[in-house]
Amino acid sequence: MKSVNIALVHHPVLNKKNEVIGSAVTNLDLHDIARAARTYGVANYYITTPYEDQRKLAGEIIGHWQTGHGATYNPARKEALSTIRLAESVEQVVTELKQQNKNLLVVATSARAYQTCISYHDLRERIENGTPVLLLFGTAHGLAPQVMEMVDTVAEPLKGATDYNHLSVRSAASIIFDRLLG
Amino acid sequence: MKSVNIALVHHPVLNKKNEVIGSAVTNLDLHDIARAARTYGVANYYITTPYEDQRKLAGEIIGHWQTGHGATYNPARKEALSTIRLAESVEQVVTELKQQNKNLLVVATSARAYQTCISYHDLRERIENGTPVLLLFGTAHGLAPQVMEMVDTVAEPLKGATDYNHLSVRSAASIIFDRLLG
Repeated sequence: MKSVNIALVHHPVLNKKNEVIGSAVTNLDLHDIARAARTYGVANYYITTPYEDQRKLAGEIIGHWQTGHGATYNPARKEALSTIRLAESVEQVVTELKQQNKNLLVVATSARAYQTCISYHDLRERIENGTPVLLLFGTAHGLAPQVMEMVDTVAEPLKGATDYNHLSVRSAASIIFDRLLG
Repeated sequence: MKSVNIALVHHPVLNKKNEVIGSAVTNLDLHDIARAARTYGVANYYITTPYEDQRKLAGEIIGHWQTGHGATYNPARKEALSTIRLAESVEQVVTELKQQNKNLLVVATSARAYQTCISYHDLRERIENGTPVLLLFGTAHGLAPQVMEMVDTVAEPLKGATDYNHLSVRSAASIIFDRLLG
């Protein structure tokens, strides 16, 4: 039984100048990543932000598609957004998921190469062998060092056919789901 | 020498009721798909729309990142958007590309299964053997029948781990680039 969970992290992340910031929740990240998550059977899609107003905004958007006009207008979107959970922090997500299964493997994604990387091939195997996984995706310019320090491992950076590696987090998440679960 | 080109089609496409419409160009489709296209070495990313005001809008967005403030603020984005070409129709794109190489293979993408599908494995092989390819992506609810009738073949629908298949065109394009060129 595969269990893949993801968190889109809005704090602590880096800005262009490598400073630690909190980023804004965007409507599009909710929709695009939820649709891909639902397609590939991701169990829970966490939106983490310490800002209450941002969680409220996300909750209102989700509510529109879950119980508002959107739910009848587009039932497929309702289904996708039903994978979303709101959380204050990465720590909260890890604690919640570890209560369900203490073997949880927490994996950061990054456009940079780290010494202790896990390949998609190996990660796919771990998932198929029943290890529950939490994949962390950073918004803005990526996950801050304090997040990288708390994870069990880092997924290898996605390589395209060129040395250009500035994928949107929406594209990166979609490709990673396909490699791990497709 | 691989040659993969793509076109994001804004007309003729289908709406929710299966009627043929023209859709609006969106800023995000330009950015997300251009970044993925650049990462995977796509040669040209065509935006096709018969509406002059929509081509003008797209041209202004691209201009901001090519020669405006955006070009110095974010050179990586400048590089990604440099793959974009504007065209009036799919026919114009096909004619342009066939002038360069008459062996062009025109491939539609679709969430539906068609009788004459090509697998990503076979399409990847064709690309590696030097066949120049044009991949068509539909906006809104997908490419209209008149586009499906003019293509050489249709790529197999993307299958995730579930029977839900409502990926955004941005996610679908990213995953297809990874399967064909990753």
